[in-house]
Amino acid sequence: MKKFDLVITKGTIVTASDIFQADLAIQGDKIAAIGPSLAPFGNRLMDAGGKYLFPGGIDVHTHLDMPSGGIVTSDDFYTGTVAAACGGTTTIIDFANQSPGESLEETVDIWHRKAEGKAVIDYSFHITVCDMRDSVFNEIPDMIRRGYPSFKLFTTYDGLRVEDGVLIRALKQTREHGGIVCVHAENHHMIQYLVKELLTEGKTAPQYHALSRPALAEQEAVARVIRLGQLVEAPIYIVHLSSREALGEISRARREGLPVMAETCPQYLLLSDKYYLEPDFQGAKYVMSPPLRPWESQEELWKGIAGGAIQVVATDHCPYNYKGQKDLGREAFNRIPNGSPGIEARMSLIYNYGINEQIIDLCKYVEITATNPAKIFGLYPQKGTLGVGSDADIIIFDPNLEKTISKDLLHERVDYTPYQGMEVKGYPVATIARGELIVEEGRFIGKQGRGNFLRRSHPVVL
Amino acid sequence: MKKFDLVITKGTIVTASDIFQADLAIQGDKIAAIGPSLAPFGNRLMDAGGKYLFPGGIDVHTHLDMPSGGIVTSDDFYTGTVAAACGGTTTIIDFANQSPGESLEETVDIWHRKAEGKAVIDYSFHITVCDMRDSVFNEIPDMIRRGYPSFKLFTTYDGLRVEDGVLIRALKQTREHGGIVCVHAENHHMIQYLVKELLTEGKTAPQYHALSRPALAEQEAVARVIRLGQLVEAPIYIVHLSSREALGEISRARREGLPVMAETCPQYLLLSDKYYLEPDFQGAKYVMSPPLRPWESQEELWKGIAGGAIQVVATDHCPYNYKGQKDLGREAFNRIPNGSPGIEARMSLIYNYGINEQIIDLCKYVEITATNPAKIFGLYPQKGTLGVGSDADIIIFDPNLEKTISKDLLHERVDYTPYQGMEVKGYPVATIARGELIVEEGRFIGKQGRGNFLRRSHPVVL
Amino acid sequence: MKKFDLVITKGTIVTASDIFQADLAIQGDKIAAIGPSLAPFGNRLMDAGGKYLFPGGIDVHTHLDMPSGGIVTSDDFYTGTVAAACGGTTTIIDFANQSPGESLEETVDIWHRKAEGKAVIDYSFHITVCDMRDSVFNEIPDMIRRGYPSFKLFTTYDGLRVEDGVLIRALKQTREHGGIVCVHAENHHMIQYLVKELLTEGKTAPQYHALSRPALAEQEAVARVIRLGQLVEAPIYIVHLSSREALGEISRARREGLPVMAETCPQYLLLSDKYYLEPDFQGAKYVMSPPLRPWESQEELWKGIAGGAIQVVATDHCPYNYKGQKDLGREAFNRIPNGSPGIEARMSLIYNYGINEQIIDLCKYVEITATNPAKIFGLYPQKGTLGVGSDADIIIFDPNLEKTISKDLLHERVDYTPYQGMEVKGYPVATIARGELIVEEGRFIGKQGRGNFLRRSHPVVL
Amino acid sequence: MKKFDLVITKGTIVTASDIFQADLAIQGDKIAAIGPSLAPFGNRLMDAGGKYLFPGGIDVHTHLDMPSGGIVTSDDFYTGTVAAACGGTTTIIDFANQSPGESLEETVDIWHRKAEGKAVIDYSFHITVCDMRDSVFNEIPDMIRRGYPSFKLFTTYDGLRVEDGVLIRALKQTREHGGIVCVHAENHHMIQYLVKELLTEGKTAPQYHALSRPALAEQEAVARVIRLGQLVEAPIYIVHLSSREALGEISRARREGLPVMAETCPQYLLLSDKYYLEPDFQGAKYVMSPPLRPWESQEELWKGIAGGAIQVVATDHCPYNYKGQKDLGREAFNRIPNGSPGIEARMSLIYNYGINEQIIDLCKYVEITATNPAKIFGLYPQKGTLGVGSDADIIIFDPNLEKTISKDLLHERVDYTPYQGMEVKGYPVATIARGELIVEEGRFIGKQGRGNFLRRSHPVVL
Repeated sequence: MKKFDLVITKGTIVTASDIFQADLAIQGDKIAAIGPSLAPFGNRLMDAGGKYLFPGGIDVHTHLDMPSGGIVTSDDFYTGTVAAACGGTTTIIDFANQSPGESLEETVDIWHRKAEGKAVIDYSFHITVCDMRDSVFNEIPDMIRRGYPSFKLFTTYDGLRVEDGVLIRALKQTREHGGIVCVHAENHHMIQYLVKELLTEGKTAPQYHALSRPALAEQEAVARVIRLGQLVEAPIYIVHLSSREALGEISRARREGLPVMAETCPQYLLLSDKYYLEPDFQGAKYVMSPPLRPWESQEELWKGIAGGAIQVVATDHCPYNYKGQKDLGREAFNRIPNGSPGIEARMSLIYNYGINEQIIDLCKYVEITATNPAKIFGLYPQKGTLGVGSDADIIIFDPNLEKTISKDLLHERVDYTPYQGMEVKGYPVATIARGELIVEEGRFIGKQGRGNFLRRSHPVVL
Repeated sequence: MKKFDLVITKGTIVTASDIFQADLAIQGDKIAAIGPSLAPFGNRLMDAGGKYLFPGGIDVHTHLDMPSGGIVTSDDFYTGTVAAACGGTTTIIDFANQSPGESLEETVDIWHRKAEGKAVIDYSFHITVCDMRDSVFNEIPDMIRRGYPSFKLFTTYDGLRVEDGVLIRALKQTREHGGIVCVHAENHHMIQYLVKELLTEGKTAPQYHALSRPALAEQEAVARVIRLGQLVEAPIYIVHLSSREALGEISRARREGLPVMAETCPQYLLLSDKYYLEPDFQGAKYVMSPPLRPWESQEELWKGIAGGAIQVVATDHCPYNYKGQKDLGREAFNRIPNGSPGIEARMSLIYNYGINEQIIDLCKYVEITATNPAKIFGLYPQKGTLGVGSDADIIIFDPNLEKTISKDLLHERVDYTPYQGMEVKGYPVATIARGELIVEEGRFIGKQGRGNFLRRSHPVVL
Repeated sequence: MKKFDLVITKGTIVTASDIFQADLAIQGDKIAAIGPSLAPFGNRLMDAGGKYLFPGGIDVHTHLDMPSGGIVTSDDFYTGTVAAACGGTTTIIDFANQSPGESLEETVDIWHRKAEGKAVIDYSFHITVCDMRDSVFNEIPDMIRRGYPSFKLFTTYDGLRVEDGVLIRALKQTREHGGIVCVHAENHHMIQYLVKELLTEGKTAPQYHALSRPALAEQEAVARVIRLGQLVEAPIYIVHLSSREALGEISRARREGLPVMAETCPQYLLLSDKYYLEPDFQGAKYVMSPPLRPWESQEELWKGIAGGAIQVVATDHCPYNYKGQKDLGREAFNRIPNGSPGIEARMSLIYNYGINEQIIDLCKYVEITATNPAKIFGLYPQKGTLGVGSDADIIIFDPNLEKTISKDLLHERVDYTPYQGMEVKGYPVATIARGELIVEEGRFIGKQGRGNFLRRSHPVVL
Repeated sequence: MKKFDLVITKGTIVTASDIFQADLAIQGDKIAAIGPSLAPFGNRLMDAGGKYLFPGGIDVHTHLDMPSGGIVTSDDFYTGTVAAACGGTTTIIDFANQSPGESLEETVDIWHRKAEGKAVIDYSFHITVCDMRDSVFNEIPDMIRRGYPSFKLFTTYDGLRVEDGVLIRALKQTREHGGIVCVHAENHHMIQYLVKELLTEGKTAPQYHALSRPALAEQEAVARVIRLGQLVEAPIYIVHLSSREALGEISRARREGLPVMAETCPQYLLLSDKYYLEPDFQGAKYVMSPPLRPWESQEELWKGIAGGAIQVVATDHCPYNYKGQKDLGREAFNRIPNGSPGIEARMSLIYNYGINEQIIDLCKYVEITATNPAKIFGLYPQKGTLGVGSDADIIIFDPNLEKTISKDLLHERVDYTPYQGMEVKGYPVATIARGELIVEEGRFIGKQGRGNFLRRSHPVVL
């Protein structure tokens, strides 16, 4: 009998529904067998006694090497995916942003060039569409067939936002061809009105960023987008849900039986709008959209995860250095680049605040960090679970390992982390990607460019 | 002692809170006294034994002499107000529609010229704004001061509709100066999308009008407008609410404590979308926006009235002759002039289907047809109640008088009524306006042009 | 022409729907006329310039001269009604409590003897039934016919509480004969369990009274009673609603269209459970059932009044002296007599905290203190409004008169007031009962025993 | 290398979260390995190509060999478990019913004697408590420790029902010792009242059974029990939820974050109250409590499953022969033995109406029929999933096999099935229990008495 390349022994295997102790065997890049005592059949063994085996994290919301307003996010596909891997994430879906005038094909080509030869974990692309002219609209079916079944549209930002009519057509087109629309939902006009009012009143500091984009703006846009989807019976995926008000709309839609899903991010679960008050313009570190919310929202978002209204926790990793980038907005909050890093700490933060605080259980943890993202975005069952035949993307997670999150701990190429100083118990000690051990004890040992592009299949509505 | 000009004896006086038998004395154009036996003090007596005295109806939603798309509504201020008076309505608020480029002052001047010398009952104007350029925006405070505190904005119809940003500013401006915004709320883009789809499929008959403007479109727009109002803490008045879905949004907003009010109309309470199926293009008679809805909505709207979520029943009287006007749309439902007559039958229809069916009581009847409209639109206490010092606008209503609604019964200048054949029990037998008996036994006996313009005060939120 | 006995001039007359300035004429014990200038016709004039004329307050929840557990409430029908009158209340409905074994006829006879010759304002009786044996059940129709259409049942207290089955039959019997059931709704078993737990743990102080009767117990019982009423389509009137949780059940039932009404009391609107912590056993003053709640409930109860879910504010005036009565419970909170005084301050407190704080308007004030109680309990239109033909029960209320509530200000025969020290603006300056001026400048000038028993008609569901 | 006893090849393995094609190896009574090509390692092979491997069904609500009112359910532990096995169920939890005066130990002893030597699949017992005297109450901790962590209490049926106070104490006691209370929730007094009314009116036919136990009675009791559980922070499991009204209460409680779970049954998902109208007393076949409901409830219950409000589908298998048992109630519906058979058809019916109708997906199917029941009742991970180390309880399910449900098809020892004539696509073709093939092609080939008693662990709240 041919032996397995690697057998991970004695770990506790966790899937979205099951927890059991077993050995797990890897052959090539796949999980080959799960059994009680596979050690004799392994060419190589790893002892995972006392540790969890989780499916590698899937982060479906990242912005690597992304140009925007004259600057570029500070992580590229190498540094960003190394950080991801070190944090226990083995797959990302990055947003390929169309520039005006581009075809979608051109857009993804650009993004392929950014990732190829750099990414150290597998990756795929959502396509952000800002210019939905007819020829672009007509590209959608083909892009879905070629493995890009998810498109992101904005309801806000000049130059990005689309009218309801465009959304309706896009929702119908994607639904008919087996794709899905992701929406950044905030009411543009409310924000525009408030920004103008605030600046007129001389309110330029970072904390006014939060006031300029109230939960009300998110709530309205989420509610509206849900109704547009309902019109054409299309599924909706709301990215980076931040407020209890908007969550209320999601919950209501799901009770009505509508195919509406939502993602939130660690920052919305763990940080509050009080952070904007940090002195010396430090509040700028937390400037992102939607903004951080009062703590009541965090409590409700956790409940939303536990109760199923929110299916995914991604990061919206959008790193800008404080020096040289964030500080471009010293004069006015609306010039602060929007975004914050988070790709690396997600798996540990959610474990610590979700599991240790007993808000969710281990199965739910796997579900929101890996299984659901994979199912929703057409990566399942290749990714997102520990099943025979699936890619051997596995993290060995030590529930007792304690760390303090800090810029120095992390591998992100950015000069701060919004989670600085948070103490967590539970951290990945090894990351295996397609059968290959790429992170060991927090050290990346893989090869640049080893990540593959993932052609994705049809989304599943959860 | 000087005698009263007129004493109405033995009637049952009904106000929004009280029902009692008493005599009511009129001096000049005012109610001068209410007492148990005022007959000796009357120069003239009217016996109202066995009858109700209601405050004259107030119809806050009419379109008289209104040009639109090359045609004009078939009632002018003379024929329309005669019909109103015959039906028991003693005050109307008509919509003065701004044409592009006009100042609001020019708009109301045009409408004053339409009404003066013609109207037989008192009248006032809401101002419909389609072109909210800065100079128009700046006219708002002055128009409120001059007695036009209510403005109507549309979320749909090309040429009429305004963006959310315009609504926000208008809501704030009116609120700050003590006015109120009325909104015709339907999602424009949904409708546009559906109209195109339906026409492309060759679906041109009147019933497709209803499909092209689903309750979903109304629901979304009502929800959105509520949130825009919430942003600037402005009251909202939704005109012609038609669906249970949209009503759900109103109820929810009111439970949240938001200053949101709603009006519905007899057609939405009594007629269903089945009417569009009448053969030989007769369905066109019922083409209005929002369209008639499935019967479930009617049931819910009645509940909304009984429970207080809906405060007003107005008519949206917008008469177009079937011949020569409605039939302009034979080729496609979206060319059928939108609107239906109803100014005359309202008081009797609501009595018959509300009181006789025991859905509402007499006080609620007065509240929704007179008192609330007066309070919301700044006419109270001059209008809307039977109180000492109020204008003597009174209808003597015989609860036992049976009629069959028909084109022949009514005085509206239009070649059909959507209520043709409905049998009602309860009809006004006399209409007194500012102390003057102007309708007797269904016959108008007043003088053309006797109606006065009503300069209105600040709205009250109910 | 015969002159009116009394004309009140220049006041602002307020009813549940209207506010207008007029003179009001009284002939005998009735309101005879309302008109703009009735002064010439008055034998006697009272100037009410700058003041409001409200319908005399109706307090539908009092316990005068009530024996319970070996003690008796400290106000009898003389002292209690004098206090009521001084506070602006001109009608009470007291609870006639059946003792085990008594027929209902015997019960009301006993209460008639308590009131006759003592009460200074008009009064009626609800009948509290503790022993619903068949003969008692069969008395219900007759008692309704004789003017006692309201019956109170308890879901808690040993000796008083009835099983669901008894409630069902009682609800059906009263509904069929045109009566109504009032319910004291708290879950008996929850309370029993908690009392035992608390006492076992040695928790005997007054604050544990609140913990022993949580909002949950009220919520459950209210929800249950609503469903029992729904079964037999009977209206329900919940007395002394205290918590937002229970209010939620009322609101929900009303949205479902069920004939459910609720009363709250000033103590639940103005005092919080923090009061139980007053040192030296002073917390005992606030021991009543249901208990005072955390402040969130107060906010919600006010909203419930404003939004219509709560129809009545009564007092549950149940006075026990602190010395000699309340202090009987020093050893254990469950031995403290339950109840607090409030009959006198209601009209002013609700005015001050409702009107001055702009939570409700004047019409709503009249509605909840007079009109609704009268309609619900079959006293309308004799009582509860300022209408021609109604009893001349009127208070002249000075909106600018400032007072500090204190034991010394009040006429209640009890050694404390829970509202001690509250500053109010707005107080009655004269109370007229059936045409007779009985309170002037806070001094009772009427005659003992002048109050009449009121035979009541059928309840109205609001 | 030692070979596996059995390898099932080429099947599609389905768990509550995963679907993947793999071979599954069994060693002894456990699942030993899951891998892509385990065939070479199997002593024996079964080909499951084109078929699903589901975890064996777990039916947590059965009544075998149960005496009640002088008769006994027609299936004993042999016939009942054979039928279960033939239908794809490999574990049951039967209700051991305490008789008055018995200790719980005596109760389970009696049930052990019923099952031992008879049951062909593994089994455990809930304990139904009717007599919660102190000594019984004190047995609870020990019974939980001994593997009986679930107790059933009734809110209805004379002799069985307990007061709220007993429920509160039982909920607290079980929660504190790691158990859970299951509740049959219907309002006893409502039912008693209605039964009496109906019989008095001569309404004795089976359809009146449904009228005597309306959804309102279930809704009230479910709501109440939820609040009792909330008081002591105890989890609640509502058995056989039948109506949308009661489901509404479950959903609401879960939105409030309360640990409330619910089970429904195929009959409530598939049959409506119309069945009671079958002529010739055939309606008696469907007499069970709660009764069948109007079809709207079925639609909502399915939604409740899909959305997560309902966690379990069990059968309440309670077989009575039509002849000789059901017909004892010809004179009056309340003498018809309550209950219906269903143990065998569950897995196929839920597959057919859930999966084929696309209401739920395969993972959800496994979740509600096996994984959730196992987790909630302390059998997981021994039972309820296809994981390495779990008991090899597996059904091989052919999604294309068509059958017509009929008495002849089924192995239940009862003379009818309520599902007679229903056509299903999808049926188990083999049942493996603890590694042993016990049903092949619909034929039971196992040995009587091979089933083991399952000592259960602590419940999990889902």
